[in-house]
Amino acid sequence: MNLTILGCYAATPRTFTNPTSQVLEIKNRMFLIDCGEGTQVQLRKNKIKFSRINHIFISHLHGDHFYGLVGLVSTFMLLNRVNDLHIYGPKGIKEVILLQLKLSNSWTNYNLYFHELESEGSEVVFEDEKVIVKTIPLKHRVYTNGYLFQEKTGDRKLNMDKILNLEIDQCYYQKIKSGGDVVLESGEVIPNSIMTFDPEPAKSYAFCSDTLYNEDILPIIQDVDVLYHESTFLESEAPLAGKTMHSTAKEAATIALKANAKQLVLGHYSTRYESIEKFREEASTIFQNVLLADDGKSFEF
Amino acid sequence: MNLTILGCYAATPRTFTNPTSQVLEIKNRMFLIDCGEGTQVQLRKNKIKFSRINHIFISHLHGDHFYGLVGLVSTFMLLNRVNDLHIYGPKGIKEVILLQLKLSNSWTNYNLYFHELESEGSEVVFEDEKVIVKTIPLKHRVYTNGYLFQEKTGDRKLNMDKILNLEIDQCYYQKIKSGGDVVLESGEVIPNSIMTFDPEPAKSYAFCSDTLYNEDILPIIQDVDVLYHESTFLESEAPLAGKTMHSTAKEAATIALKANAKQLVLGHYSTRYESIEKFREEASTIFQNVLLADDGKSFEF
Repeated sequence: MNLTILGCYAATPRTFTNPTSQVLEIKNRMFLIDCGEGTQVQLRKNKIKFSRINHIFISHLHGDHFYGLVGLVSTFMLLNRVNDLHIYGPKGIKEVILLQLKLSNSWTNYNLYFHELESEGSEVVFEDEKVIVKTIPLKHRVYTNGYLFQEKTGDRKLNMDKILNLEIDQCYYQKIKSGGDVVLESGEVIPNSIMTFDPEPAKSYAFCSDTLYNEDILPIIQDVDVLYHESTFLESEAPLAGKTMHSTAKEAATIALKANAKQLVLGHYSTRYESIEKFREEASTIFQNVLLADDGKSFEF
Repeated sequence: MNLTILGCYAATPRTFTNPTSQVLEIKNRMFLIDCGEGTQVQLRKNKIKFSRINHIFISHLHGDHFYGLVGLVSTFMLLNRVNDLHIYGPKGIKEVILLQLKLSNSWTNYNLYFHELESEGSEVVFEDEKVIVKTIPLKHRVYTNGYLFQEKTGDRKLNMDKILNLEIDQCYYQKIKSGGDVVLESGEVIPNSIMTFDPEPAKSYAFCSDTLYNEDILPIIQDVDVLYHESTFLESEAPLAGKTMHSTAKEAATIALKANAKQLVLGHYSTRYESIEKFREEASTIFQNVLLADDGKSFEF
């Protein structure tokens, strides 16, 4: 599982910082999460192939999370994209993208599917044989969802020494991988447990931006491997966090702790701070495994 | 008159090139012309004060000329802008900007005025005591206007040696600057011509992007000081220029020649070319004074 941060600063694009956007590579699928202004340039700078992006998840319709989307949709068109593109986001996202295409007398030469969200509860928005994506309802000034990306548990791994020793026919292998026992010609039952090892543990990633401190999300993200949680402010600006419906680094860490996350990634920093190191310091007083997102940084989990 | 090129490449923002946007400073007024994605970052990089921009002129609603506008309008809001902001552009521009503000539950704390254009003929869209701005109807795939920025002729300049010699009272100075004669107590009439010099010649700047080669614009831009004319393609791609309703460098030069422009600035280059020097070469075979726009470049006229 690989996470590339294209932008992780709040509010406005600036000379050296970009608004929210990130790419999650999971089970060889590439998901774009949020798309602030300048995202397509960040994709280029980070050498991410445009054609690998088939699903874009937008948390909410504040500019710093989606003003780069229409440009990306247009650029895909200019690059003669062929693959279908799926966009997930709050109701209204279809109208605003299509209006802009209409005004520029443009259209997409690829299929463009909008999956508009308006549920107040968590729902599955994407599922294939290897990955499932659910919404994480967040509390912000407009309708906002985070997203939980979960790998599905893979096949059990064959213990080849045992299997060859027992002279089990290849035609049973898929059944064994799926957890089945084998009955030998002698009538003897070989239990699956002695022919297999546990599969690789399924990993999960939760993206939570932007949000007020909100314990309602804990059941959804419980035991998540990696939690990206916004931390717009430091403790000194806690009242402002409440007023603007954002979180502090300590609040993000508290969510990570209570969710039993293995790893916390902080981001969505207000540009008022000269250094982001203080975010790690404050969060670390509550939760141990804190990483700092930064534009252009990649994490391997 | 100062022109700063924020971006001058066609189609999409890329790692080292930006879509169309430029700032014209004329008679101490600062006009933003077009606003492709990333314009606000380019404004920062070129150290242009956001608060000095009160008028934004959009040529047409293709993404590479206006996808940066909504972000700039939003950033003005976050920066607690006070001044009124005037936006000039094709009909539809108001709907698309306001829809995006509505979806993000935002508003502007400053007055935002839209001046929507739909005339097929040239019209005055801005005028104050020192500058006048007219549209230049262009031929492109969507409704498009260039803009002609003209300084108004200033006051005549006082010839102080003569005036002091004639012992003319200060109270006549404004009258003299405006071109009036003076009658001395003796009854003698002093003609204005011997008390003044001609004023600084009024300068003009024409912005023409994007457009098919179109001689209909010649009467509007006749004798312009500086003509920015798009040259998306070189001669080798002339058929493509026609098909996409763009111009070649030679066509831009021909317009400059026929309009009797003093200076031609080329821009809106297709990113297919490795170097832009060839644009100057081809245009120079037709017109002498050719400058190449490039991102971050400033011209003093």
